[in-house]
Amino acid sequence: MRTSIATVCLSGTLDQKLHAAREAGFDGVEIFEPDLVASPESPEAIRDRAAELGLTLELYQPFRDFEGVGPDLLAQNLRRAEAKFGLMNRLGIDTMLLCSNVATARSGDEQLAATHLRRLGDLAESFDVRVAYEALAWGRFVDDYESAAQIVRLADHPSIGNCLDSFHILSKGHNPEAIETIPAEKIFFVQVADAPLLSLDVLSWSRHHRLFPGEGAFDLGTFMAHLVRTGYDGPVSLEIFNDTFRQSDPAATAVDARRSLRWLEDRTADALARTGGSRIGRMTTTPLPHVDPPSDVNYVELRTPDRDGLRDLLTQLGFRTHGAHRTKEVELWSHGAARVILGAPDSRNPQPTVAGLGLSVGDPATAVRRATELLAPEVPRQQSVDDEPLAGVRAPDGSEVFFGAVGRGEPDWVREFGRPAAADAGIIQRVDHVNLAQPWQHFDAAVLFFQSVLDLRVDASVEVAAPVGLIRSQVLRSADDVVRIALNLVPSAASEDAILPQHVAFAASDVLAVARSARARGFTPLQIPGNYYDDIAARHRIRPELLDELKELNVMYDEDDTGVFLHFYTPPVGTVFLEVVERRGGYAGYGAVNAPVRLAAQYQQRDRRQRQEPTA
Amino acid sequence: MRTSIATVCLSGTLDQKLHAAREAGFDGVEIFEPDLVASPESPEAIRDRAAELGLTLELYQPFRDFEGVGPDLLAQNLRRAEAKFGLMNRLGIDTMLLCSNVATARSGDEQLAATHLRRLGDLAESFDVRVAYEALAWGRFVDDYESAAQIVRLADHPSIGNCLDSFHILSKGHNPEAIETIPAEKIFFVQVADAPLLSLDVLSWSRHHRLFPGEGAFDLGTFMAHLVRTGYDGPVSLEIFNDTFRQSDPAATAVDARRSLRWLEDRTADALARTGGSRIGRMTTTPLPHVDPPSDVNYVELRTPDRDGLRDLLTQLGFRTHGAHRTKEVELWSHGAARVILGAPDSRNPQPTVAGLGLSVGDPATAVRRATELLAPEVPRQQSVDDEPLAGVRAPDGSEVFFGAVGRGEPDWVREFGRPAAADAGIIQRVDHVNLAQPWQHFDAAVLFFQSVLDLRVDASVEVAAPVGLIRSQVLRSADDVVRIALNLVPSAASEDAILPQHVAFAASDVLAVARSARARGFTPLQIPGNYYDDIAARHRIRPELLDELKELNVMYDEDDTGVFLHFYTPPVGTVFLEVVERRGGYAGYGAVNAPVRLAAQYQQRDRRQRQEPTA
Repeated sequence: MRTSIATVCLSGTLDQKLHAAREAGFDGVEIFEPDLVASPESPEAIRDRAAELGLTLELYQPFRDFEGVGPDLLAQNLRRAEAKFGLMNRLGIDTMLLCSNVATARSGDEQLAATHLRRLGDLAESFDVRVAYEALAWGRFVDDYESAAQIVRLADHPSIGNCLDSFHILSKGHNPEAIETIPAEKIFFVQVADAPLLSLDVLSWSRHHRLFPGEGAFDLGTFMAHLVRTGYDGPVSLEIFNDTFRQSDPAATAVDARRSLRWLEDRTADALARTGGSRIGRMTTTPLPHVDPPSDVNYVELRTPDRDGLRDLLTQLGFRTHGAHRTKEVELWSHGAARVILGAPDSRNPQPTVAGLGLSVGDPATAVRRATELLAPEVPRQQSVDDEPLAGVRAPDGSEVFFGAVGRGEPDWVREFGRPAAADAGIIQRVDHVNLAQPWQHFDAAVLFFQSVLDLRVDASVEVAAPVGLIRSQVLRSADDVVRIALNLVPSAASEDAILPQHVAFAASDVLAVARSARARGFTPLQIPGNYYDDIAARHRIRPELLDELKELNVMYDEDDTGVFLHFYTPPVGTVFLEVVERRGGYAGYGAVNAPVRLAAQYQQRDRRQRQEPTA
Repeated sequence: MRTSIATVCLSGTLDQKLHAAREAGFDGVEIFEPDLVASPESPEAIRDRAAELGLTLELYQPFRDFEGVGPDLLAQNLRRAEAKFGLMNRLGIDTMLLCSNVATARSGDEQLAATHLRRLGDLAESFDVRVAYEALAWGRFVDDYESAAQIVRLADHPSIGNCLDSFHILSKGHNPEAIETIPAEKIFFVQVADAPLLSLDVLSWSRHHRLFPGEGAFDLGTFMAHLVRTGYDGPVSLEIFNDTFRQSDPAATAVDARRSLRWLEDRTADALARTGGSRIGRMTTTPLPHVDPPSDVNYVELRTPDRDGLRDLLTQLGFRTHGAHRTKEVELWSHGAARVILGAPDSRNPQPTVAGLGLSVGDPATAVRRATELLAPEVPRQQSVDDEPLAGVRAPDGSEVFFGAVGRGEPDWVREFGRPAAADAGIIQRVDHVNLAQPWQHFDAAVLFFQSVLDLRVDASVEVAAPVGLIRSQVLRSADDVVRIALNLVPSAASEDAILPQHVAFAASDVLAVARSARARGFTPLQIPGNYYDDIAARHRIRPELLDELKELNVMYDEDDTGVFLHFYTPPVGTVFLEVVERRGGYAGYGAVNAPVRLAAQYQQRDRRQRQEPTA
């Protein structure tokens, strides 16, 4: 698959954009006209720079409001096109994008539009360039790719063809199947964009909220399968207008973009395999190395300056220590199959507090190969002679994901630590879910990263009210619900002392027993207000004795149609906190309804501490 | 007008919210249930705290999904209501908001809903409380205030009445006229919210994008006039769900909120006067002291550490200095009626670079009185014995607005500076417009401040692409277009070294003459790329000689149906830059189409300088 990206997807100057595209491995770029107009470099210098970088300049875009106009305006428009064709010759670009008229068309007559396009085709031919006509979703008369294709058919000119953009087709709910009726040689260009499902006017949706493939809700694999079956073998290009990407580092955005096309290639191969048929096309669509989703979280690594605080908490929750690693400055704590590796922050290589996840997979080597094909940087484990060889990759937020082999009982690497003194109580069983705080610039990239690298499902995102703003949260999980990762967006306006939405939740067979025995060991849970218990008593039928016990132990409650969820939180220790949960019946959520109360309690506790500190 | 605010409008803990509401002068508050549930204080303690602060607890809200359900659920819902009525007794609140059912209603039969509300009314009566029923815009069956009012009529119970919310009525385009058919004693509560016009699903629009009255696009004066004519005299309460307010300082938000209600009271008085009629109601609606909009910008005050840089620029543009003020450390520069006061930043009292505006008004004392009624803090001028008495107020971003009397020729205060040595060339005539950079938290508040204090019109906002993100810009202007203030939003993610969107534009009779003579004095304008001139040549019919001159002088070009706009920019000096503009014919814009090119040129120039600095 030949890959391309429009310069509008990236922030910075045109030169910075070209460099970022090259570094991420794109084959070519679309030149977005405003980037060219604002550049101090001459068209010839830009052409040379792209050539130096090994990038093809695939498309000049956009040319607007051409067809369906009166004779005077048509003459003006042809003059405007002539200037742009001359410019394209200087840039060495052979294809121009023409958007369907949104402002000046006076007629929707397809024959008239075709006549105008034929005039434009003659002019283009004299400059040895061609024009790719695209239906904008908000075009005045032409807002549908089938109607645009019909006009191209009527124009019947070798220099006039189609541009297909997945956003304009899928946002309007048009069926992409008819793409297969367009001859490959009449598809001059293809743009792909994903987007979240929004009920917003389509223009605002398109201009602000597009996403890279895999970050939104469109079925782009199927879209691409239709395209491949036409025989199209040209560039597949990203044209993403997104308010966040406009403000983010272009190098990181370009990697995210390139990853999305690798993922899309895999999804395309999958869709082609699923839908079968004899027309397989000419485009190369190589699947990613297959991995089964991870079968468990075999450890979580926390790096925090307050290691003592976490040691106390883990002890109170019934975890036992295995002591330090035989060569590294980390220690292991476990309870059942829940394992926590505790280390100090590395100032040379800053990472989030939830610094690593160990995942069990069927074939670790293939998992790493898949991740690196998806542009994840490999993180070789610092290893001594006898250590278990583990390999991992770095996520967009700097945390690490390590892959270990699926096995029965304890993983082999556990022996690199000491033996724990006592047996654990066996009530805590494993990691239930992990919440990772994602800086706002990396949020969508993180969704794509975890989804594509680990082949997880993506749930719809939810928003939770904190005392200082809303937190967007999106859960990714394995089909069997055993591995669950919640990504939580940290807003750009979050203050330095904001409580970060990152924590580890452990699954227990009896959360009340854990809470009671922790209390006996001196544990004080996060304090939940009495008003909360009055409220759940009004909302649900809870036995009075259970309600009393929940209240006494500061355990929160939720229920759905299939079961009940009981959970309690530790106070924040440094920049992280812990949770213990019990799922009764088929309850599949995370107690999101309780999150605002928990967040308020956390902020209140922090404020109390801050008020006490000066006098302490 | 009795004023109230829902606690959901403000950030922080319930206690912080109550304090902020009191400080801003509200009469009462609505308790938003999640704030109560998350509060560690008992209901009795909250009741006592409100009483201490002199705040009435006006409403408990929301109660959801009650009516139109099957018998089992109705019994559950009544049990839930009973618990909440008991809680209201403890809080000392006598009115509960009931939203129309969105989730569990099985029938839209109005008679059935009325029967259920009557049951609820009996229960409420036994607790000595009442229920205000409100149609949510996305209610399952009831989504229209007239239908809700009909159900209340059918319920015919003294404890059941209506709650009217301007958002739910105006967002759906319902005519508020029928409010007048509801008897005043059946209107238990009124909530007002403004909003920008968005084509977004109404639920998302309501939950994220509501604004305080005067900050959006709804005609709330007319809404209120209908309400007043019913005879309603209860609280007028703000219920604003807004993502920005949730993250902002609650004290500042509360002042903004309170200002919006004072403005709304004035707009209501105006609408009542315009629509006349004999029913004038009982609610007090006092107009604000009337001021005519300012007739000119008589000075702009810039406070910058790089005073020398600005002195050079002003000299090159043909401004002449009047020297320092006789007692203060500021100096005056003028050209025609364009006046710039130049000072150094005051570290004790930080202000934006565009630190002050002097405006000529018919009656300065009344202008100040109007502003202070709108909660603007007064800023008395530091004054010596013989100085002209001027008074001003502080805007939300910390800048100052001073009012001077309208007069012919130079204002009297100019004599407090020295006499300029030379006559100016008379080509620059006055300040054309001023661009104020607004921190994201204050943007909507600034729109309301300038609109209400100066009685300006608000244009639709536009978005401009910068190399590092989009900038939202909104113009406020006097009816005669003489005073124009553009507010530009600085995004929360703006880096410390971002170029702030703040500048002063001067109107010239001949911008090319200004550019030429400035060049003769050594001026180098912001460099506009050659690609830009190729582009405007393709788009517009510009005489080749004019195009050459524009290009040579780095002057930009725009046109609309009525005229032409020529303008050039100075390079940024510290945190500000200047612009000189010429309007030919009726051109009424600001060259927004050129802004991305200008922004890119500014960033490129800064990057060049930064690269040079290490070697310099």
